[in-house]
Parts: sequence; C-alpha cells; structure tokens
Amino acid sequence: MILTLTPNPAIDVTYRIGTHTPGGTNRVLEVQRRPGGKGVNVARVLAAVDVPVRALLPLGGDAGRWLGRALDVPFEAVPISGENRTTVTVTGDGHPTVYAEPGPELSEEEWAAFGSRLADCVSGSELLVVSGSLPRGTSPDLVAEWVRIAREAGVRTLVDASGPALLAAARAGAAVKPNQAELLAATSAADEAAGAAALLRLGARLVVVSRGADGIAAYGPGDVRIVPAVPDVRGDPTGAGDAATAGLAVALAAGRPLIEALRNAAALGAAAVLRPVAGEVDLPAYHRFLNGAPA
Amino acid sequence: MILTLTPNPAIDVTYRIGTHTPGGTNRVLEVQRRPGGKGVNVARVLAAVDVPVRALLPLGGDAGRWLGRALDVPFEAVPISGENRTTVTVTGDGHPTVYAEPGPELSEEEWAAFGSRLADCVSGSELLVVSGSLPRGTSPDLVAEWVRIAREAGVRTLVDASGPALLAAARAGAAVKPNQAELLAATSAADEAAGAAALLRLGARLVVVSRGADGIAAYGPGDVRIVPAVPDVRGDPTGAGDAATAGLAVALAAGRPLIEALRNAAALGAAAVLRPVAGEVDLPAYHRFLNGAPA
Repeated sequence: MILTLTPNPAIDVTYRIGTHTPGGTNRVLEVQRRPGGKGVNVARVLAAVDVPVRALLPLGGDAGRWLGRALDVPFEAVPISGENRTTVTVTGDGHPTVYAEPGPELSEEEWAAFGSRLADCVSGSELLVVSGSLPRGTSPDLVAEWVRIAREAGVRTLVDASGPALLAAARAGAAVKPNQAELLAATSAADEAAGAAALLRLGARLVVVSRGADGIAAYGPGDVRIVPAVPDVRGDPTGAGDAATAGLAVALAAGRPLIEALRNAAALGAAAVLRPVAGEVDLPAYHRFLNGAPA
Repeated sequence: MILTLTPNPAIDVTYRIGTHTPGGTNRVLEVQRRPGGKGVNVARVLAAVDVPVRALLPLGGDAGRWLGRALDVPFEAVPISGENRTTVTVTGDGHPTVYAEPGPELSEEEWAAFGSRLADCVSGSELLVVSGSLPRGTSPDLVAEWVRIAREAGVRTLVDASGPALLAAARAGAAVKPNQAELLAATSAADEAAGAAALLRLGARLVVVSRGADGIAAYGPGDVRIVPAVPDVRGDPTGAGDAATAGLAVALAAGRPLIEALRNAAALGAAAVLRPVAGEVDLPAYHRFLNGAPA
C-alpha cells in the first residue's frame, strides 16, 4: 500500500466560459467540481492503475464534508476547525486562468493530531508520498517531521514540494521530485545539475526532476539517469506532474530499478496529458507508452 | 412587513488578488463569502434601515446549508434537490472580474412548492419584491404567477428583473424597476421614454428606471417624475441598484407619494455606494442624503 499525504487539499472548480472578459461579467456555461490537491491527484492515479493506496488529509467545514463525500479513493481524514480551500480554473478562449485560495491555517494541536494519524497509517505502507503546497502559516519543518515519522516506521518518503518545504524534505533525507522551475527557484542554482547536487548535499536520497517535454532526470549520489518524454503527446498538461509522481512511486515502492521507475513516470505522465482532468489517465495509452509506442 | 423573493440566490465570493494575470495562476490573498442574490441584498438593506422584512428563497446542497447559516435576515427556505450557485468576483489592480454560475434547475414540483410557500408567506405583507435572475431553464411566466399569487392575497409586487422576465412582470401588472440598459434591451426601444411606455402598455402599474449617476425616473400612466442622483458620490456601485430597490419598496409599502419613494431610493442607493459590500449601506450618510445634503 502507498500512503499519500495532502497537506492542503482543495475543491478544484472548473468554469467553462465563452470569451474571457477580464474586468467584466463572465457567464459560466458549465461548472465542474472535483477533489483536488496534488496528493489527492497522485492517489487517484494510483487507484486508476490498480495500486492499493490510501490518502491522508485534513478536512474541515462544508468544503471538507464535500471532499469526504466526493473522494473516490480510500482516505483517512483528520478533522480541522478551518474550512478547506477551493481553486477556480477558468477555461475559455485562451490559456486557463487559475485562482488559488490559500487554504485554512491549522493549529499546532491539529498538526500534532495529523502527525499521530500519520504514524498510525504509515506503518505497513511501502511508501509515503507527500505532495503539494503547505497551508499558509505552516512551518516547512513539518515536512521533515513527516519524513521522520515514516522513517521510524521503516517507510521511505517521496516528496513533491517547492520552496522551503523542498529544502526541508531534502535535509530530512527524503527522495524529492520537484519540477525544473521549482528546483531552480528553491536552490537558486544556475542549472538543473547544480540544483540537484545542492539537494543531494543537503541530504536528499534521490532527486527526480520533471522537465515536461524534455523528459525526466534522476540524480543520485554519483549517478544521473535521464529518460525522454513520450514524443508528440498533445493535450492538457494539468495533472501530468502528479501522474508522473504516481508512476515513480509505484516503481520505488516495489523496489524496481530506477530506470524503470523513470520510464513508468514518463509513461503515466504522458497518459495524463491525454485526459483533461487532473488525477485521470488514459490507461490503454499508458500501456502502449510503457512498451515504447509513440503517441 | 416586506417579503423579498430571490429566485436564484448565491454565495457571493470575493477574491482579493494582487496583479490580475489572465491566462496564469493568481494567488488569492483574501477570501470573503457572503449570502447574495439581488433579493437577498434588498432584504439586508431593508433590515439595515429597520424595516420588517422576510426573504423567500430556494435552498439546496452544501451551498444552501451555508446560505441558511449565514443569512442575517429572517427567511423562508424552500428545499430543493439542486445546489445553490456561487458567484466569484476577483478584485485586483483593475476593474473587478465576475464569474457567475448559472444556478440549479428546479423541477416543476419544486417551483409548485415554492409558489405554495409564497402564498403562505405573502398574506399580511405590505409588498412583495421579486428581484434577480431566474435560474437556467426557468419560464419567465413564473414571475407572472408570483405577481398573481400576491395579488390574490391583496399584495402589490415590485419586480427587478431583465429580459423576458421583465416583460412578463409588466404583463402581470407589477410595478417594475429595471435599470436603463435592461429596459432598452428588453423592449428594443430607441430611448428610455419609449421603453417605459412599452412596459406601461403591456400592463405595468409603474416603471421606475435607475440611471446610475443620472438619477431615477418613474413613469406612470400620463406622468413622469425624475429625481437626480446624490451628486459626487464616490465608491463601489456594487449593490447600489438593490439598495435603491429597497428604498423604493419601503415608500411604496407605506403608501407614501411617488416623489418621496424616488428620493428615498436615490438616497439609499447613494448610501450603498459608500459601502463596498452589496446589501450594506452607510446609515448616517443615508439620513444626510435624505435631508438634501451632498456627499
């Protein structure tokens, strides 16, 4: 079983409109709501490829109740007094416009309860995946604490985070999976190799960098492996990074060779591009891509 | 007591952001949620000026439960199976951008229950105010039905609506209060006087036209009264039309002369401009404006 941890889950709302009129009134033609947050997307992709998974997340308010009803993967909810956030994505005649609420602030007691529940859930898991932003006002040290809790249960952790949380995860010895822009921003490095080396020096066990159309690179101590992206995949890249994280997690949890993990990540990421919704993948395409077929 | 009817209430969400980036990701700095819909705003203004009021509205889903908890005026809710809508207003460095969800479709049975509840509530009221858009897929004839139900209880109706619903209200003999743009759009008339005359010919008892900075005009059979806007009022015009409707409703319900009703509407509308939130008015300013003081 893989456990995913989503510190700041969201109701992902998508508004389809006609012509986008910033500064005016836009009639929404169609509304879609689905559970979101990167760890939730990872869990949904894992469930889609039949990997046993459980999602751990804080839930509160009306939004939390809705998330609890709408989640289609097994989950453990830690109740909080705040209300979960919403993100609004507006799709119209141009690039999507996203409005991202910051999310609730959790009290120290609530984070302590969250850590206790993590300790209960993680033992017996094959891997912990920590994925997505921290709520406003949250210390990045919490990520290190979660990595430590998993380690005490004999479980390794893969962290997809940015900024100070990414650095904290590296210091705690986790495997980390930033995208290239996040890597450069967090480390202030001049290029990808220097950024990955910096995270390894901090203590990261493995640094996997997703590069979109330029494939995926994995940096270990004294070792770099790169797999290209599936060529000519056209579609919606929303959620492709989360699908790649899921692909990586499956292979790492099963103890498969790193190069296989990267190929699995690239194939699942490409299969997610073919579906417009984060957390969904085109399964037949995934299996074709794994076998080296083009898009 | 004044009864307000809101066919399509909403959770009005306001996102404050920094620089607005259409086609990109916008971090929301502050989120505000409040009950909305034009009839709800009218009811809140009436309560603010100590006029006994009750709001009638369909409520459903998580959004409906939230509205029921958050409404700070007495209300009668008709339960529906659909979920109430949300509007999102983004305020940043330019004009506000609004995204308006269409709202739930109600079944024939739900509208019948709504009419029955209206019949129960309206008797003993001094005025019915029908305000705001109809949900998607709703026949404008429903507005005429509500006017008829009120008339059978000996109660007059003031309707703030647009398009076919405005025409249906006029045919049913209601007093109507479109803004100038809505009047011209619904009647295809060349100017305000011709548009008002068209609604009077259809059967409207009174046509009150709000013109923003150009004041308010009232057209009755063979009679036009115009009051100027309070000069030099600066602020946020959101909700000013609803406050003007409330001001008009108070005076009409009390049987005061039309010119007083218009002055009251202009003063309350201007007092709403001084408050950024729909449904709120600056009470000291309202009383100053009523006495002819400038902004």
